[in-house]
Amino acid sequence: MIEEFQISTKSREEVVVITRRVEEIVAKSGVKNGLALVYVPHATAAVVLNEDEPRLREDILNKVKSLFPRGAGYRHDEIDHNANAHLASVFLGPFVVMPVVGGRLARGTWQDVMLVEMDGPRTRRVVVVVLGQA
Amino acid sequence: MIEEFQISTKSREEVVVITRRVEEIVAKSGVKNGLALVYVPHATAAVVLNEDEPRLREDILNKVKSLFPRGAGYRHDEIDHNANAHLASVFLGPFVVMPVVGGRLARGTWQDVMLVEMDGPRTRRVVVVVLGQA
Amino acid sequence: MIEEFQISTKSREEVVVITRRVEEIVAKSGVKNGLALVYVPHATAAVVLNEDEPRLREDILNKVKSLFPRGAGYRHDEIDHNANAHLASVFLGPFVVMPVVGGRLARGTWQDVMLVEMDGPRTRRVVVVVLGQA
Repeated sequence: MIEEFQISTKSREEVVVITRRVEEIVAKSGVKNGLALVYVPHATAAVVLNEDEPRLREDILNKVKSLFPRGAGYRHDEIDHNANAHLASVFLGPFVVMPVVGGRLARGTWQDVMLVEMDGPRTRRVVVVVLGQA
Repeated sequence: MIEEFQISTKSREEVVVITRRVEEIVAKSGVKNGLALVYVPHATAAVVLNEDEPRLREDILNKVKSLFPRGAGYRHDEIDHNANAHLASVFLGPFVVMPVVGGRLARGTWQDVMLVEMDGPRTRRVVVVVLGQA
Repeated sequence: MIEEFQISTKSREEVVVITRRVEEIVAKSGVKNGLALVYVPHATAAVVLNEDEPRLREDILNKVKSLFPRGAGYRHDEIDHNANAHLASVFLGPFVVMPVVGGRLARGTWQDVMLVEMDGPRTRRVVVVVLGQA
C-alpha cells in the first residue's frame, strides 16, 4: 500500500514530527508483519528517527547548521543559494525504513519519525510504502 | 518473517558486529530473493555496514566522538546527558537494508553489519525483517 | 526481482549518476507498487539521492573530503591507506530505498540516484532489488 500526505513547513530550518500520520497509514494498510518506507521526494529535506523532545530538535538543527553552514563558498550556490540544504539531505538521507509488527510500527519508546526541513518554508510531500503480510 | 535478538553492550561507546545473527535469521526465513531490514528501536544507537577490522572500528568511534562530542553545550543535556549519542544516531541511522540473493545476505567481502552503541552499556534490541520470495 | 550492474569509476573520488540504470530495472521488474533497494556491496563507496548538477556534485565531494580527510592519523591506515573512504561510506551509507508507484521510481524532480566513489578508480557492483505488487 502506498499513500502520500503533505506537510507545510513554516521556517527555513525546522523539524516536524510526522509519526502519527505514518502510523495511520500503517494501520489502514492492513499489513500485519513487514516494513514501512517513509520517503520525501525532495533534495533539500530529510527524514530521520529520534526522540521527540523540543530541546533535542533544536540540537539537531544546530548540528545540521554547524556541519553544513549556509553560504560557505559552495559552487552550487552560484545557481541556487541552498547548497547547504542539499548537503544536509545527502548526509541525513530522505528516507527511513521501519519494521511493522502485529499491524503496528515497531518503533522504540524514544523514536519518532521526523521530517527535517532545511530550505523552507515549503510544502513537502511524504510518501509512505507499507509492504508485508496481511 | 520478523525476528528479534538482544545485544548487551559493555562500554559507553562500542561497535558490535552482528552479521552472524542476522544471517541466521535470513537462513531461517526461507526467503530466497528479497531484502532484509536490520533495525534498532533506539535513539542513541545505530546500525551501519562496514569492514570488521579492529582498528577501523576504533576509527569509526573516534570519528563519531569528534563529530558529536559529549557535553558540547547541547540543550537536551539539561534533561539527559546524552545529546551527543542522539545526534550520532540521527546521522548514522538506526537501520540498514540489504539484498537477499539465493537465500543469503548479499553483502560484500568487506561488509559486516555493526551495531554502534553510543550510550552504553545497555541491552539493545535488534529487529530483523526479511521480505521476498520463498 | 533482483538485478545487478557494474560501474567503472575513473577517479579516486567521483559521483556517478545511475538513475537510468535503476529505472530500467524497475521497468523490467513488472512491479507496479512497492519499493526499490539500490545497494553497493562495498565498504568504501556509497549510494545517495540528490540533484544531478555538476557544481553540486563537486560540493558533495568537497564536503566528504573535508569531513573525512585522507590520511588524518587513522588506525586503519596502518593496514590500508583508505580509512577516510570507509568512514565516508559508514556515514553516507551504501544503499537507498525508494518508492515504486505506477511502475515507476517515485523520485522527486531534483532527485537522482548517485554512486559515491571514494576509493577509486574501481569496478563497483550495484545490486537493485524491486519488491511489491505486479
